[in-house]
Amino acid sequence: MEAELIAELRRRIPPHPLVRLGPGDDAAVLRLAEVDDCAVTVDLLTDGVDFRLAEVGPRRAGRKALAANLSDLAAMAARPLAAVVAVALPRRDGLRLGVELFEGMLPLAEQFSVAIAGGDTNSWDGPLAVSITLLGAVTPRGPLRRGGARPGDRILVTGMLGGSILGHHLDFTPRVDEALLLAERYELHAGIDISDGLSVDLGHLVEESGCGAVLDLDAVPVTAAAEELARRLDDGSTALDHALDDGEDFELILAVPPAEARRIVAEHPLDVPISDVGEFVAEPGLWQTDRAGGRRKLIPRGWQHEFD
Amino acid sequence: MEAELIAELRRRIPPHPLVRLGPGDDAAVLRLAEVDDCAVTVDLLTDGVDFRLAEVGPRRAGRKALAANLSDLAAMAARPLAAVVAVALPRRDGLRLGVELFEGMLPLAEQFSVAIAGGDTNSWDGPLAVSITLLGAVTPRGPLRRGGARPGDRILVTGMLGGSILGHHLDFTPRVDEALLLAERYELHAGIDISDGLSVDLGHLVEESGCGAVLDLDAVPVTAAAEELARRLDDGSTALDHALDDGEDFELILAVPPAEARRIVAEHPLDVPISDVGEFVAEPGLWQTDRAGGRRKLIPRGWQHEFD
Repeated sequence: MEAELIAELRRRIPPHPLVRLGPGDDAAVLRLAEVDDCAVTVDLLTDGVDFRLAEVGPRRAGRKALAANLSDLAAMAARPLAAVVAVALPRRDGLRLGVELFEGMLPLAEQFSVAIAGGDTNSWDGPLAVSITLLGAVTPRGPLRRGGARPGDRILVTGMLGGSILGHHLDFTPRVDEALLLAERYELHAGIDISDGLSVDLGHLVEESGCGAVLDLDAVPVTAAAEELARRLDDGSTALDHALDDGEDFELILAVPPAEARRIVAEHPLDVPISDVGEFVAEPGLWQTDRAGGRRKLIPRGWQHEFD
Repeated sequence: MEAELIAELRRRIPPHPLVRLGPGDDAAVLRLAEVDDCAVTVDLLTDGVDFRLAEVGPRRAGRKALAANLSDLAAMAARPLAAVVAVALPRRDGLRLGVELFEGMLPLAEQFSVAIAGGDTNSWDGPLAVSITLLGAVTPRGPLRRGGARPGDRILVTGMLGGSILGHHLDFTPRVDEALLLAERYELHAGIDISDGLSVDLGHLVEESGCGAVLDLDAVPVTAAAEELARRLDDGSTALDHALDDGEDFELILAVPPAEARRIVAEHPLDVPISDVGEFVAEPGLWQTDRAGGRRKLIPRGWQHEFD
């Protein structure tokens, strides 16, 4: 029953200095006196689209839901503060499901000092749906936007790309610390996280920036999982295709002025790889180039929600 | 397609002075420099539980989703600021559905000066689910909590109760302005909105307050809809039963010191009725009394989400 679930969650969710009033009232109350600009992001994850509950279990589903939100704040170079969590639980075994969903979130919340401030628990005859809203503090440098890339900026990406469906899409570490460190030490012009795929998300970034980009295919960092996936699928796709088009790497694409980009690559300030994979250009659109030379149109093939 | 829906929504959602960065980036950015304590509430509404989409249509469903959240902020006597909206849309006709859902929200958002700051749009094979997170400013009086009722306080309720299923649950006006006015002019000890029914929500309030309540059945304000429903159902239930136990009146229950309660009832500062329906007492639990005299246990029969 709903009351039991709420009581259980109130026992398990730890206190947090920002939370003046936590779960159990009509709203949570957060102390935001130190926050001038507040970043707010929401992600709704559903069984069958973002995870297969029967395969991954509620803990990994819960972890992913929070991690995906954290990745959005990373893309803004904002510091995570607090989350509220709304769930629609299948009636069957809903209490256990709800508890385990939160158990999956709590370690990640602790790792990133995020308060679980409140939520809404529902049961229904549909599949699991979990919606997390995450609040973050924009740093004095301002939010890192999609729309700031300028022709001549280099395209940097964190980590390695492709094949996340083999496991990374559930277990990734959102690049929050990396984004905060880079935004503090270097001049960044724009950023986005890779949720729909490098090609699609780079497309979003250039569209908002009113420019184009040329991707150097030889420089794209390809995971072993992308190699593995290409082998397994045996459908003519290459590991590079997967690095370009697979969704849910949850790495960052950054637009960085050239001198600053050279400095980042040389100083290598992160624990994860950071690669220069091309250049923003004035001409709108996406282009690809490689050792063989020749600039060709790059067709984004990543993920989009489709309606009939 | 998702991109089309987002483009359409960006065209339709008006600018708002609090929004530094609206829909279209990885997160919205809100200017909250003037807000010390921020109330955050989330409600996830689903087709088949909170509304029947095929009967009510997306506009009324969208309106209800935002109105239910506004009612939660009213219960805290907080001033609404901004919302983010996450939707899981059935694939069939998802674009039209998404647009009309927002069309249902926008007039209410305007009425209460709420910014629609951002969101997340998804499609899936499940029924419609819509999750709204609403941020509000706690006033200098502090948040109105569930846990502040004291023995001797009067139980006040706004409006009329019961039978909301006949229409009110879709078309109600959240008691935001009423709550802010009462909290500013009078001393209020505790509050909650009636989402699960007077008996259940009064039960939540006394549980959090560590006290009990005696409800004067003769004083409970009963709607014509409750009379109508009792007639139609013809199942032995009375209009009063519906006023006590029906969910989704979205009126306020307030705990008010006796002298202050008399002042409110005498001054009648609201455009809606406000009734004194009983007293908070030291002994835990819920009780009922009426003209016939005799204090008996009151058994809450309102709405709870049930799991198997």
